[in-house]
Amino acid sequence: MKDPIEFWFDFTSPYSYLVSEKIDDLAAKHGRKVKWKPIMLGALFKTTGTQPLTQVPLKGDYAIRDFARSARFLGIPYRQPSKFPLTTLATARAYYWLHDRDCAMARKYAHAAFRAAFTEDRDISDPAVVVELAAAQGANGEELAAALGTQEVKDRLKQECDAALAKGMFGAPYVIIDNEPFWGADRLPQIEKWLETGGF
Amino acid sequence: MKDPIEFWFDFTSPYSYLVSEKIDDLAAKHGRKVKWKPIMLGALFKTTGTQPLTQVPLKGDYAIRDFARSARFLGIPYRQPSKFPLTTLATARAYYWLHDRDCAMARKYAHAAFRAAFTEDRDISDPAVVVELAAAQGANGEELAAALGTQEVKDRLKQECDAALAKGMFGAPYVIIDNEPFWGADRLPQIEKWLETGGF
Repeated sequence: MKDPIEFWFDFTSPYSYLVSEKIDDLAAKHGRKVKWKPIMLGALFKTTGTQPLTQVPLKGDYAIRDFARSARFLGIPYRQPSKFPLTTLATARAYYWLHDRDCAMARKYAHAAFRAAFTEDRDISDPAVVVELAAAQGANGEELAAALGTQEVKDRLKQECDAALAKGMFGAPYVIIDNEPFWGADRLPQIEKWLETGGF
Repeated sequence: MKDPIEFWFDFTSPYSYLVSEKIDDLAAKHGRKVKWKPIMLGALFKTTGTQPLTQVPLKGDYAIRDFARSARFLGIPYRQPSKFPLTTLATARAYYWLHDRDCAMARKYAHAAFRAAFTEDRDISDPAVVVELAAAQGANGEELAAALGTQEVKDRLKQECDAALAKGMFGAPYVIIDNEPFWGADRLPQIEKWLETGGF
């Protein structure tokens, strides 16, 4: 059994959403599992001195156009969130809380959160929305709501952000296959070839 | 006859080199010509507040790896220049001087300059190298060497940089098909689909 692929992302990243709709099937085709790892892009951007994409002059306008066009190219539904970008602290903390209890439920929650943000224009940075989405997958909403503010859950996400930086992550999505990093939804063809050939 | 595609680039941009090896054939397959337009990325970066890719922490290391991998993926020879990035003022000015005299010769010079930089590690920012590369395509080297410092040739390039900004360009390569912009060598599959379908 080959090592799982790592899929590092931020829930506010449109290109991460696009990869989230493809990566599990792509990996399964090549006998691989995928570890999903939400982090906070803001923490990485402090290290690299990067601005959120849509706040860069000219590039921001292009990005808004490219998010939707790339989604059409990949055959994935997409609607630009009216509030963007989002600070997805609660969204990511909830993911790890769920993951440490029920890995499959966490995966379903992650899909639900991405789709809520990028097809239904829901504000997934809102802890009430996060709890609702998790509860819809079968989680105990009251326990989750209470957990979100605890130091333990805060530290859990902080550790993952530190781990992402240590792996050289500077943007999302960031997919790692056997130590080889791939940044961006536009690297899906290279990811596929890498899985097919074991490296090129 | 459909309008030509516009291919805006900087001679120092590895991803522009990759597109330069593909775009003419891709366009011809769909009955299109390509207008080549070198500009100075530095002029755009002043507007957007962007750093050269390889000078961004973490992202720079990834980029060096990704240049070569993307070249292998596309089946294009690639060698990372030892001096990088280059300020390609003379390289681009020579292109327009040639273009305004012999369009086909300018295209051959552009290919020669890209290949000199990215397969032979030659310093194409050096005016002596620029003149040599142009002369090898049949240009009058003495006339070109004298022209490079003239206000007319400087203004010609400046106007193209202004035109690029006016078209929303913020990075290279930047390909425009019937007003639709595509940034990056990784947009080649979308460019191909756009040419096939007339938009998606």
